[in-house]
Amino acid sequence: MNKVAIIMGSKSDLPVMQDAVDILKEFGIETKVDIVSAHRTPEYMMDFGKNAHKNGIDVIIAGAGGAAHLPGMVASITPLPVIGVPVKSSNSIDGWDSILSILQMPGGVPVATVALNGAKNAGILAAQILGVKDEGLQNKVLDYMNELKVKVQKMREDL
Amino acid sequence: MNKVAIIMGSKSDLPVMQDAVDILKEFGIETKVDIVSAHRTPEYMMDFGKNAHKNGIDVIIAGAGGAAHLPGMVASITPLPVIGVPVKSSNSIDGWDSILSILQMPGGVPVATVALNGAKNAGILAAQILGVKDEGLQNKVLDYMNELKVKVQKMREDL
Amino acid sequence: MNKVAIIMGSKSDLPVMQDAVDILKEFGIETKVDIVSAHRTPEYMMDFGKNAHKNGIDVIIAGAGGAAHLPGMVASITPLPVIGVPVKSSNSIDGWDSILSILQMPGGVPVATVALNGAKNAGILAAQILGVKDEGLQNKVLDYMNELKVKVQKMREDL
Amino acid sequence: MNKVAIIMGSKSDLPVMQDAVDILKEFGIETKVDIVSAHRTPEYMMDFGKNAHKNGIDVIIAGAGGAAHLPGMVASITPLPVIGVPVKSSNSIDGWDSILSILQMPGGVPVATVALNGAKNAGILAAQILGVKDEGLQNKVLDYMNELKVKVQKMREDL
Amino acid sequence: MNKVAIIMGSKSDLPVMQDAVDILKEFGIETKVDIVSAHRTPEYMMDFGKNAHKNGIDVIIAGAGGAAHLPGMVASITPLPVIGVPVKSSNSIDGWDSILSILQMPGGVPVATVALNGAKNAGILAAQILGVKDEGLQNKVLDYMNELKVKVQKMREDL
Amino acid sequence: MNKVAIIMGSKSDLPVMQDAVDILKEFGIETKVDIVSAHRTPEYMMDFGKNAHKNGIDVIIAGAGGAAHLPGMVASITPLPVIGVPVKSSNSIDGWDSILSILQMPGGVPVATVALNGAKNAGILAAQILGVKDEGLQNKVLDYMNELKVKVQKMREDL
Amino acid sequence: MNKVAIIMGSKSDLPVMQDAVDILKEFGIETKVDIVSAHRTPEYMMDFGKNAHKNGIDVIIAGAGGAAHLPGMVASITPLPVIGVPVKSSNSIDGWDSILSILQMPGGVPVATVALNGAKNAGILAAQILGVKDEGLQNKVLDYMNELKVKVQKMREDL
Amino acid sequence: MNKVAIIMGSKSDLPVMQDAVDILKEFGIETKVDIVSAHRTPEYMMDFGKNAHKNGIDVIIAGAGGAAHLPGMVASITPLPVIGVPVKSSNSIDGWDSILSILQMPGGVPVATVALNGAKNAGILAAQILGVKDEGLQNKVLDYMNELKVKVQKMREDL
Repeated sequence: MNKVAIIMGSKSDLPVMQDAVDILKEFGIETKVDIVSAHRTPEYMMDFGKNAHKNGIDVIIAGAGGAAHLPGMVASITPLPVIGVPVKSSNSIDGWDSILSILQMPGGVPVATVALNGAKNAGILAAQILGVKDEGLQNKVLDYMNELKVKVQKMREDL
Repeated sequence: MNKVAIIMGSKSDLPVMQDAVDILKEFGIETKVDIVSAHRTPEYMMDFGKNAHKNGIDVIIAGAGGAAHLPGMVASITPLPVIGVPVKSSNSIDGWDSILSILQMPGGVPVATVALNGAKNAGILAAQILGVKDEGLQNKVLDYMNELKVKVQKMREDL
Repeated sequence: MNKVAIIMGSKSDLPVMQDAVDILKEFGIETKVDIVSAHRTPEYMMDFGKNAHKNGIDVIIAGAGGAAHLPGMVASITPLPVIGVPVKSSNSIDGWDSILSILQMPGGVPVATVALNGAKNAGILAAQILGVKDEGLQNKVLDYMNELKVKVQKMREDL
Repeated sequence: MNKVAIIMGSKSDLPVMQDAVDILKEFGIETKVDIVSAHRTPEYMMDFGKNAHKNGIDVIIAGAGGAAHLPGMVASITPLPVIGVPVKSSNSIDGWDSILSILQMPGGVPVATVALNGAKNAGILAAQILGVKDEGLQNKVLDYMNELKVKVQKMREDL
Repeated sequence: MNKVAIIMGSKSDLPVMQDAVDILKEFGIETKVDIVSAHRTPEYMMDFGKNAHKNGIDVIIAGAGGAAHLPGMVASITPLPVIGVPVKSSNSIDGWDSILSILQMPGGVPVATVALNGAKNAGILAAQILGVKDEGLQNKVLDYMNELKVKVQKMREDL
Repeated sequence: MNKVAIIMGSKSDLPVMQDAVDILKEFGIETKVDIVSAHRTPEYMMDFGKNAHKNGIDVIIAGAGGAAHLPGMVASITPLPVIGVPVKSSNSIDGWDSILSILQMPGGVPVATVALNGAKNAGILAAQILGVKDEGLQNKVLDYMNELKVKVQKMREDL
Repeated sequence: MNKVAIIMGSKSDLPVMQDAVDILKEFGIETKVDIVSAHRTPEYMMDFGKNAHKNGIDVIIAGAGGAAHLPGMVASITPLPVIGVPVKSSNSIDGWDSILSILQMPGGVPVATVALNGAKNAGILAAQILGVKDEGLQNKVLDYMNELKVKVQKMREDL
Repeated sequence: MNKVAIIMGSKSDLPVMQDAVDILKEFGIETKVDIVSAHRTPEYMMDFGKNAHKNGIDVIIAGAGGAAHLPGMVASITPLPVIGVPVKSSNSIDGWDSILSILQMPGGVPVATVALNGAKNAGILAAQILGVKDEGLQNKVLDYMNELKVKVQKMREDL
């Protein structure tokens, strides 16, 4: 069963979005990667969004750059939590357009926005969300946090 | 026959968008005002957008604030020119979010963006577009430009 | 059992953050409101953050303005999903400081950021997250989305 | 008969503006490229602008960077729709100056602004505008939109 | 003989631009106030700009808001120094548009830009420019600077 | 006799500021280049500024980056027109700091600000200022403007 | 003996800067308030700055708005730590100009910048600095931090 | 005895922060460099911050990028002056996020913020702070300022 869908409007976003796939695999979470373009395949986006929760998806991660409409549009048609990743594409004005067009959603339709190019954090957030119903996964998140700590401690000792 | 559709996500945008309706009436162009919300009525937006050109609409003016997805999403499903009006709503960060999420459309899907709260200019632009096939209307645009000039000349004399 | 904790650094943030409490009540989700200041009660913040998941909290919503450190610091010590609400306080530079200091978290420690003053959306996002393990709640989210649609349809008819 | 004029202040803008020429050629639309500088050939700009609609031009695309006055000045003297392309020139502050000095036109004188360096979209918008009076062209726009969709579908299958 | 022309696109800019008139009067410099709109009276602007130096004008002060083209366009057709005053009009995005579209002129066509709404400083700058050829006026500028100093000293004593 | 002083805080600004020297030479205007640092040689800056008009200087061009205080501080102690050139130094935040700390001078102390790295325009502006008292120089400015026009016309023909 | 000088360019900055005076009085630290304008009394500023450390001043707090040169200029002539307070004056562009022209000092001449209108924090920072050589004062700072904590705890209980 | 602690969240910040170490060594001040991550080692940060003043530290310099919480969090638990260095990390949006999340601290908890990547100035500021209780060190600061002056004078002569 797929758990976390990672969608983006073009293969050109994959180098950024792959970080989400990788970290989710580390957590042992199944992922489904798909190309869904708000502006070029709007009907497929509607189908994808409306049916995601019926297709075994629990969380959607959507990456987009420039006038980034994919995360917000998918959020408008799914009851699932949608995590938006602003991508600093070549189209983008230093990333400000991607950030603001994902973050500033109107009341009623949230998108959980992470940092510019923050696909890794999108993956971790998805794991935390799934951890709400899965204590084993929550413990893996705690372990991950501990590993971060250990790495920093090692850096300190190496200094 | 309707010519120019003026759509917005909420009645709260109407005080800004009414300027488009008014100027189009001055030009003698028929208008159709509708509430179409990208985030709250995505299916209706899809229907509206796909069928606009079949329903006698020639130009679409779409106003939106914050993470403003309506103009771009409609543009993705219609062959008609779409004019986007960034609205400085209470949701908005000084209008930057509205502007960037309407303006920065990816290659392939243009939105003709006008100034923040520039609904009047959206209406004039629609008239100019319709004037391409209607010399009488083009002359009205020239008359309008002349009136602007006369008003400024009068200001100068009044000084 | 408490489900969603809504925390903020000062009572002065409550008028904004109350929207999260209200919408969660609409969804029938228990809430716990607390004053937790990253800068004035850092030890209590550490205690709160480390123990939240042991105290029956499933999701944390944290609101903060200016150099907004509360959401990110709590995220650094809890395995729970943390939703950050940038508050446009009197301290803030048009909200840019709040947004950037919540959104731009480093790799490893995500905060699910919503729009400026978007506490209502933070509450809905928390409901979507809890809906991942609770189909009844997911259906309530679907109902809520439908109500939004009906309201817009009514606006259209009233036009 | 020329249909769409593509003007810019310097040959150095041509690498960006060529995208408009190319896409218009794809649509089978005649183009006329010209160097018209608001600041260095203001008289020629006035002549060009005043006479464009008499010279068989239907739509004007104007590209400019920095304090970009060409699109707005031409718009002030022509009844034709003017599409402005903000160019991120070496003069420019990350493109903000180009965008704001093209977009923020006063009431009465619209410029249809597209994304930073968005000359391709300017061309498509011109095709959509001409499509208002030419059903065959409108169908070509629909075909183009379909091609975009097919390309994304192919990307999805290739994944 | 007129010395300094103070021009603006609309009477609505006069409350800001009056500061330039007033300070120039303090310096005993003749002024000529005129309404010259780049976008609504482009031909008059061309006439005004081309002939200003033949009509006894030595310095031009031009105020404008939003996509502010007046200062730069006048600068493109006159050999006189042009001082640009960005006006924070109701059209403006916090003044950024006015500032950038006046300041960021291309190489070859300078505009001497002063602070947002800084019409008073535009007047003083004009006096300094005229002082280059008029030692009496330069001494008045020195006197003015001394008065500023005395006022601050008085503030200090009053503390 | 020196006419235009071109000052900057460090030799590292010279590659940008040299454009002012070069264009002034083209106009046959004498220049004096000096290193004057507001922050590292404040006393020399005071001496320089107070005595410039006594030392045959008519116009001062001051270039600075980051928290750019040199133009404004010199303006506070000289009756001469001061032209400020915001330099995009390695210290600078995309040039915004340089621009704002030169442009936004308080009432009473103007700096004639030109575009980011716009030293060439600073030189031309100085020539225009000196042209107020020197008709021959004013004619050279007109010639220069004509050359710009001719270059663009040539570009057009080459197209 | 005076300890902390609090200077500003105009009495109009006093409502903001008074917060520094008040908190320093709470800590029992002597203050000296003075009007020192970088742009209107540059010579007095030089005198003040050069002699402050000889006149029993240990720390200088300087507030300024717009193109805020006072903190940086004083820092260039004193060996004392200088704390800069960006003031959001009526002159200012949302405070960005004040912040950037105080913060972005070149290498060699630091200004300890606090938040926009953050005069209170400037006072506390001065107390922390003086606490480096005065354990009693450092303990007062610890007490102050404890009072902040107690106030938040009381807020929590009142909830 | 250690005097100035220089902390940062990761070794990747060391190339920027080394400037602080180097200049402090020039002043003969002892330094202690440590890796302290607000988000990955929050407990160690708390220990470090609470005990710094007991461990012979007089001033803390903290560098951080992106959503930079380290300087503000340490400031919330130490009575020592904390100097914050916004680091333009790869995570950062042109440095704006780092600057605003360090600078815009709430009332009660100051951070002495220096320029983007301004670690050298952080070191000099620390020396100025320690100079308040050490006249010999204050004289070294005066000597350093003099050397800056001499270097500029030499530049001038070399011109």
